[in-house]
Amino acid sequence: MKNNLLSEKLTYTGVSTTPTHLHLCSYNESEVNEFSGFNFSDIRGNIQNDRINWIQVNGMQNIDIIREIGDYYNINFLTIQDILNPHHPTKIEEHENHHVLVLKLFQAEKNNQLIKQQLSIIQGKNFILTFLENDGSLFDDVITAIQNNILKIRSKESDYLLSVLLNDVMANYRNIITAVEESLEEMESRLLTITSATDIGINIQTSRRQYMRVKRAVLPLKEQFSRLLLSDSKLLHKSNRAYFYDVNDHLQFVLQTIEICRETLSSLVDLYISNNDLRMNDIMKRLTVVSTIFIPLTFLVGVWGMNFKIMPELDWKYGYLTAWLIMIIVGFIGYWFFKKKKWY
Amino acid sequence: MKNNLLSEKLTYTGVSTTPTHLHLCSYNESEVNEFSGFNFSDIRGNIQNDRINWIQVNGMQNIDIIREIGDYYNINFLTIQDILNPHHPTKIEEHENHHVLVLKLFQAEKNNQLIKQQLSIIQGKNFILTFLENDGSLFDDVITAIQNNILKIRSKESDYLLSVLLNDVMANYRNIITAVEESLEEMESRLLTITSATDIGINIQTSRRQYMRVKRAVLPLKEQFSRLLLSDSKLLHKSNRAYFYDVNDHLQFVLQTIEICRETLSSLVDLYISNNDLRMNDIMKRLTVVSTIFIPLTFLVGVWGMNFKIMPELDWKYGYLTAWLIMIIVGFIGYWFFKKKKWY
Amino acid sequence: MKNNLLSEKLTYTGVSTTPTHLHLCSYNESEVNEFSGFNFSDIRGNIQNDRINWIQVNGMQNIDIIREIGDYYNINFLTIQDILNPHHPTKIEEHENHHVLVLKLFQAEKNNQLIKQQLSIIQGKNFILTFLENDGSLFDDVITAIQNNILKIRSKESDYLLSVLLNDVMANYRNIITAVEESLEEMESRLLTITSATDIGINIQTSRRQYMRVKRAVLPLKEQFSRLLLSDSKLLHKSNRAYFYDVNDHLQFVLQTIEICRETLSSLVDLYISNNDLRMNDIMKRLTVVSTIFIPLTFLVGVWGMNFKIMPELDWKYGYLTAWLIMIIVGFIGYWFFKKKKWY
Amino acid sequence: MKNNLLSEKLTYTGVSTTPTHLHLCSYNESEVNEFSGFNFSDIRGNIQNDRINWIQVNGMQNIDIIREIGDYYNINFLTIQDILNPHHPTKIEEHENHHVLVLKLFQAEKNNQLIKQQLSIIQGKNFILTFLENDGSLFDDVITAIQNNILKIRSKESDYLLSVLLNDVMANYRNIITAVEESLEEMESRLLTITSATDIGINIQTSRRQYMRVKRAVLPLKEQFSRLLLSDSKLLHKSNRAYFYDVNDHLQFVLQTIEICRETLSSLVDLYISNNDLRMNDIMKRLTVVSTIFIPLTFLVGVWGMNFKIMPELDWKYGYLTAWLIMIIVGFIGYWFFKKKKWY
Amino acid sequence: MKNNLLSEKLTYTGVSTTPTHLHLCSYNESEVNEFSGFNFSDIRGNIQNDRINWIQVNGMQNIDIIREIGDYYNINFLTIQDILNPHHPTKIEEHENHHVLVLKLFQAEKNNQLIKQQLSIIQGKNFILTFLENDGSLFDDVITAIQNNILKIRSKESDYLLSVLLNDVMANYRNIITAVEESLEEMESRLLTITSATDIGINIQTSRRQYMRVKRAVLPLKEQFSRLLLSDSKLLHKSNRAYFYDVNDHLQFVLQTIEICRETLSSLVDLYISNNDLRMNDIMKRLTVVSTIFIPLTFLVGVWGMNFKIMPELDWKYGYLTAWLIMIIVGFIGYWFFKKKKWY
Repeated sequence: MKNNLLSEKLTYTGVSTTPTHLHLCSYNESEVNEFSGFNFSDIRGNIQNDRINWIQVNGMQNIDIIREIGDYYNINFLTIQDILNPHHPTKIEEHENHHVLVLKLFQAEKNNQLIKQQLSIIQGKNFILTFLENDGSLFDDVITAIQNNILKIRSKESDYLLSVLLNDVMANYRNIITAVEESLEEMESRLLTITSATDIGINIQTSRRQYMRVKRAVLPLKEQFSRLLLSDSKLLHKSNRAYFYDVNDHLQFVLQTIEICRETLSSLVDLYISNNDLRMNDIMKRLTVVSTIFIPLTFLVGVWGMNFKIMPELDWKYGYLTAWLIMIIVGFIGYWFFKKKKWY
Repeated sequence: MKNNLLSEKLTYTGVSTTPTHLHLCSYNESEVNEFSGFNFSDIRGNIQNDRINWIQVNGMQNIDIIREIGDYYNINFLTIQDILNPHHPTKIEEHENHHVLVLKLFQAEKNNQLIKQQLSIIQGKNFILTFLENDGSLFDDVITAIQNNILKIRSKESDYLLSVLLNDVMANYRNIITAVEESLEEMESRLLTITSATDIGINIQTSRRQYMRVKRAVLPLKEQFSRLLLSDSKLLHKSNRAYFYDVNDHLQFVLQTIEICRETLSSLVDLYISNNDLRMNDIMKRLTVVSTIFIPLTFLVGVWGMNFKIMPELDWKYGYLTAWLIMIIVGFIGYWFFKKKKWY
Repeated sequence: MKNNLLSEKLTYTGVSTTPTHLHLCSYNESEVNEFSGFNFSDIRGNIQNDRINWIQVNGMQNIDIIREIGDYYNINFLTIQDILNPHHPTKIEEHENHHVLVLKLFQAEKNNQLIKQQLSIIQGKNFILTFLENDGSLFDDVITAIQNNILKIRSKESDYLLSVLLNDVMANYRNIITAVEESLEEMESRLLTITSATDIGINIQTSRRQYMRVKRAVLPLKEQFSRLLLSDSKLLHKSNRAYFYDVNDHLQFVLQTIEICRETLSSLVDLYISNNDLRMNDIMKRLTVVSTIFIPLTFLVGVWGMNFKIMPELDWKYGYLTAWLIMIIVGFIGYWFFKKKKWY
Repeated sequence: MKNNLLSEKLTYTGVSTTPTHLHLCSYNESEVNEFSGFNFSDIRGNIQNDRINWIQVNGMQNIDIIREIGDYYNINFLTIQDILNPHHPTKIEEHENHHVLVLKLFQAEKNNQLIKQQLSIIQGKNFILTFLENDGSLFDDVITAIQNNILKIRSKESDYLLSVLLNDVMANYRNIITAVEESLEEMESRLLTITSATDIGINIQTSRRQYMRVKRAVLPLKEQFSRLLLSDSKLLHKSNRAYFYDVNDHLQFVLQTIEICRETLSSLVDLYISNNDLRMNDIMKRLTVVSTIFIPLTFLVGVWGMNFKIMPELDWKYGYLTAWLIMIIVGFIGYWFFKKKKWY
Repeated sequence: MKNNLLSEKLTYTGVSTTPTHLHLCSYNESEVNEFSGFNFSDIRGNIQNDRINWIQVNGMQNIDIIREIGDYYNINFLTIQDILNPHHPTKIEEHENHHVLVLKLFQAEKNNQLIKQQLSIIQGKNFILTFLENDGSLFDDVITAIQNNILKIRSKESDYLLSVLLNDVMANYRNIITAVEESLEEMESRLLTITSATDIGINIQTSRRQYMRVKRAVLPLKEQFSRLLLSDSKLLHKSNRAYFYDVNDHLQFVLQTIEICRETLSSLVDLYISNNDLRMNDIMKRLTVVSTIFIPLTFLVGVWGMNFKIMPELDWKYGYLTAWLIMIIVGFIGYWFFKKKKWY
């Protein structure tokens, strides 16, 4: 890592290869206009300051575009750096004329990997900028809602749009963490009986990493979102506070589930270790039972292999047969005894 | 999960199939009137604003009724959504003209399952709305008390009724968490000796889940109820504060018991794992004792099976009998030794 | 548990069968008068409002007496309920004209059981009421001190008497928790070597329960007593603050010892589990050593039991004797080897 | 423990048998005078109120002296009690005309025992009283510094002397806790390989107790010393604040090291238990390897002990020799195999 | 450790042997001048008070130089002591005319050792003093940036330079703690399967110590840096606050990673212990399997070694061969059975 205060050059250090493209949604109560483009100049002319202008930026490759947008809306250099740094910790910052939110979004892949991408939101009086590393259909429902003016979304201020976007983010967190919780509970059930499933160790680790990543993304919001709720920013209107409290309810749910995951994980590791021990011991027990059944038999054949002059049974006609019978009976008694005691 | 800020449609996402029905209890010092119905129109006419009107709503199926009641009392859309979302986290919210409480109630089933249902309470100046997912006799004692004007309940304000309802909720929590605590202590006693009871693992898990659910439902109240106690809401009268402090005492009891359950559970998991190990080892020990008793005997029969020319005892008349006697004695000495050492 | 806000009936739900009796100690600088009785009317006439009147109530059976006293001193109904509920959590409450303290006292029985009883104290300007479930000599030293006017106790206000009573309570806690701490340390010493003492599991559990009970009784005081110290109640005189700070010092000692017990208990459970494992393994090891000593011997007798035509040693005169000598030597070498390695 | 608010009698309950003796160091910028004695009357005449008078009291046996000093400087009765109670928790108390500090000092004995003694300091405008249970050279460096007027100590107020004394106390804590930390780290290194050292269990317990004692002595200072730093006491001069901040730096170091000890101890107990298990298992493994090497050999001698009529090798001239060779080869292969697998 | 308030002598107690040398960088918007020297007199003449003067001091051997610089800039004696004490805890202190920061820098060596050195920074209105124990290229990028006036660094105040230096420190922490985190995750992956790698114990301990050292260095900043951010020091200009918030973002990242390391370490120790157990048990299991395969064979040879008169198979021509065949078959069945059950 280098000192980012000593560089005038902006670089995107993430791995996404999505080419940068823009989508402007400019609306007021009566009208919605949408424009797309691969350069800021494609849409700049369509920004109308008497409307709410929502610019979606997908793909962080083309840094010049992001710098231009930043300059247009007077976003400072450090904030642009944060947007381009995909490992930036979660934060909510109040600036004089806008709010900056750096958040994480998760997407579960088939192989149980969580794909993380950074979502940065800048909310000003009449604009919202959202920066996503990849393409994504995340906000399609919001676009549709604006087109259809659902719940009079078009007559409300930019902070209402912000609360709607945050609600989408929270839904994302809820889905992920609920999946982690369910996977943990399912593993807990399996670990209560002796199981030879070898994938549980890997699964626990996978879940633990998912839990850690979500926790890292969400935990800082606990304090920072409360601070936002209590702030007297003129960008958050009193009439829209209720929506932010609704977002907060979702956040509380996510935080509670994270805490539950923490407790479950901790007891799960204990159970996993104990289960491994038990499985191993179970095998040992079975092997030992086999030995223990044969031990009296080996003793008996030893007895009849002794060289005493006078051993009457050795001379019997059916001595050998009787010996086999006795040994079979002794073997079965042992087997039955261990079966009854549930040791086998 | 979807973005609930983008939908004008209200839906109940829970599993209860109780048909929505209403019960209005309208009272003042001199009179109590009760009305039931399956539509809001059945009871709307009987609401008298100079009395305390308590409307019980059981069953969340019929969303229209709930919306109508919400409209009648000016409850905002997001609160109605919260009432209909059975997984909403516990919360106490102060609105301008009413308080909203979203709580959970638990009911222990025969199979040790906890049935959870959501109870939402809205308290305004002259009304209390309670929303329950299922039918339930939970508040029957309150109805009876109002009918009999016990403790002059009818002359007091709506916040007194709220404190009485909350007291019922706390009694519910106390009963559940005390049962969990007792079950944990009983398991702890059993685990102090080696036990082969195979149900303890399941029981611990069941208790842990119950504990988690109660904790999740109650813990948020710790902070939020204190805030309510300290608020200067005009809906909470000074003369009734003592009743809320009484509710708080019960809440403290529940919170302390939750904490005790946490500590007990943690030591219980350790004991359970240790007990499993000990039981397995105990079996191994017994098997090994059997082997160890036979080992000198097998050695002895080997000795007398050797082919040395001159082995005097082999020629004795009672040599074979003597051999058996020696072996039986050696066997018994071994058995007695292990018995004395308490290894068997 | 029932809803205590819906009942006009007071009931004592504890188990103590001590008949209610009263003891009034009324004093001023120059005089002490003591009166006993089984009804409030027996002593009511002797209450003098220009003196400090300390009424001790022992036994909660006769609820009428308690209600009468409550009425006489204007104690509200909920407080009386709290006094009669022996499971009420610890609390310190400031009312307008008096302080209410609900505390627990412990008494160690011979069988290591802790007997808990509730002590409620109400302190007003010129009176102190103490409610104890059982008889008890707890406050005898205070009575003696008043009689002898030790430290000019009779010239001081009722809050000084309160601080003296609280000091007695703290002494009670110190004695109990110090005993728990010593018992835990003694067990820790024993568990550092392999021990077959089977009572340690039970003892740990007993100590853990004592610790839990004391913790539950004392922990709420941490915050509540600080709040009392900082309050500007006119019932607590500046000149007597030092005595309350002294009580606080004792409380801090108890809280620190509780914390130490918590840490010791946690390491004790680990040690106990480890000790059980080690003891079991130790037995296994000894058994295995026995087997291992016999294994080469059994091999040797097998060798000499082979049927090769030409095995010279079988024909020697002292072949059999030599064989025994060799086997005894081999056995002793094995024994000596394991002894030296400290495996036996 | 008794109720200390009911006794006019002062008693020293500690074990130190040092006879009480006094040392007065009275100084101003130009002059230092020192006086010793076994009675307060020996030095009282030499106290000069226009100087800083530092009275060292060693040995708590002679309670009358301590009471006289207390009376001379108007120290209240409860504070004198605290000084005489060697188990008093750590505290810093601001009184109107003086500060009272009750602290602990530790001294490591040869047998790894920590000797604890109580140090009480009372700082007034022109006096410092220090009370130590035993003799001790702890403050000799301060006496020397005063004699030599190092860093113009004689021109500074009594609070500077206090900061110097506290710095000595902190140096004491640093030395002790650093020794504990080093001992823990040394044990951790040893436990990473299988060791049969039987003293580690005892050593861990010893270190844990030392840690607990230091923690108990130091932890309360965390909060109380900060409060002292922030207080606006007229006894602490602004110009001397920097020295108290320096003391605080040392305190922070001690607190951080305590926290590190806590984490190290916790992982150490786990390692210790694991190491015990591994050592036991290692012995079992070696024994089992021995058995496993002999098992095929015993099988082979069994084979050649069979009584089949036609077994050609039995009739060979060198049959017996060949058998021994085969068995030695098989034994060596087994040994080599286990050696290669690192099982032996 | 000695009492540092009683000594007029300054000593450097660290181990670095770097000879003290100085480097002055004096700049304003238009000009940069650099001077080096081994005495303060070499550069003192070049300090220009209308510029920002940054004096780098490398090597703490020559205490006189450090004292001279301290005198020149009116740094108090205790601060100079702190700079010279390489074990001083991390702190940020606001003085009247300057800020003092005592920080730690880490450098990873090839053998996984962390080399720690202390960095002290004093920031005044027109000067920055940095004190490093060793040489180091840490701030070369800052020097270059000043020379090239990158981001107009030369036109900004001394607090901007401070934020740039702190950013370098944070980059140092990020690199170290990220390396620790990656090493922990790599070990976690390895421990999920049975591994005989003997270096993991050592590696865990190494990582734990690195984590502890970084934690100790960084954790105090959590609170102290927030306090600096909120302070109204006239030395921190409003226009530069954003840069300090950027430093804070990096600090948050480091703190979060430390927390993740803590959780990972805790589960890692459990896994390590479990893995050791499993490996040992695995060996035992394999040995026991070997025994168990041979046990029926040994029984069979015993059978055919019995001396019964009439045992038909002993007289068969191919009896011996048949016996071997039977035994080979039985052995293979055993082997195949255990293979199938995955016990071998």
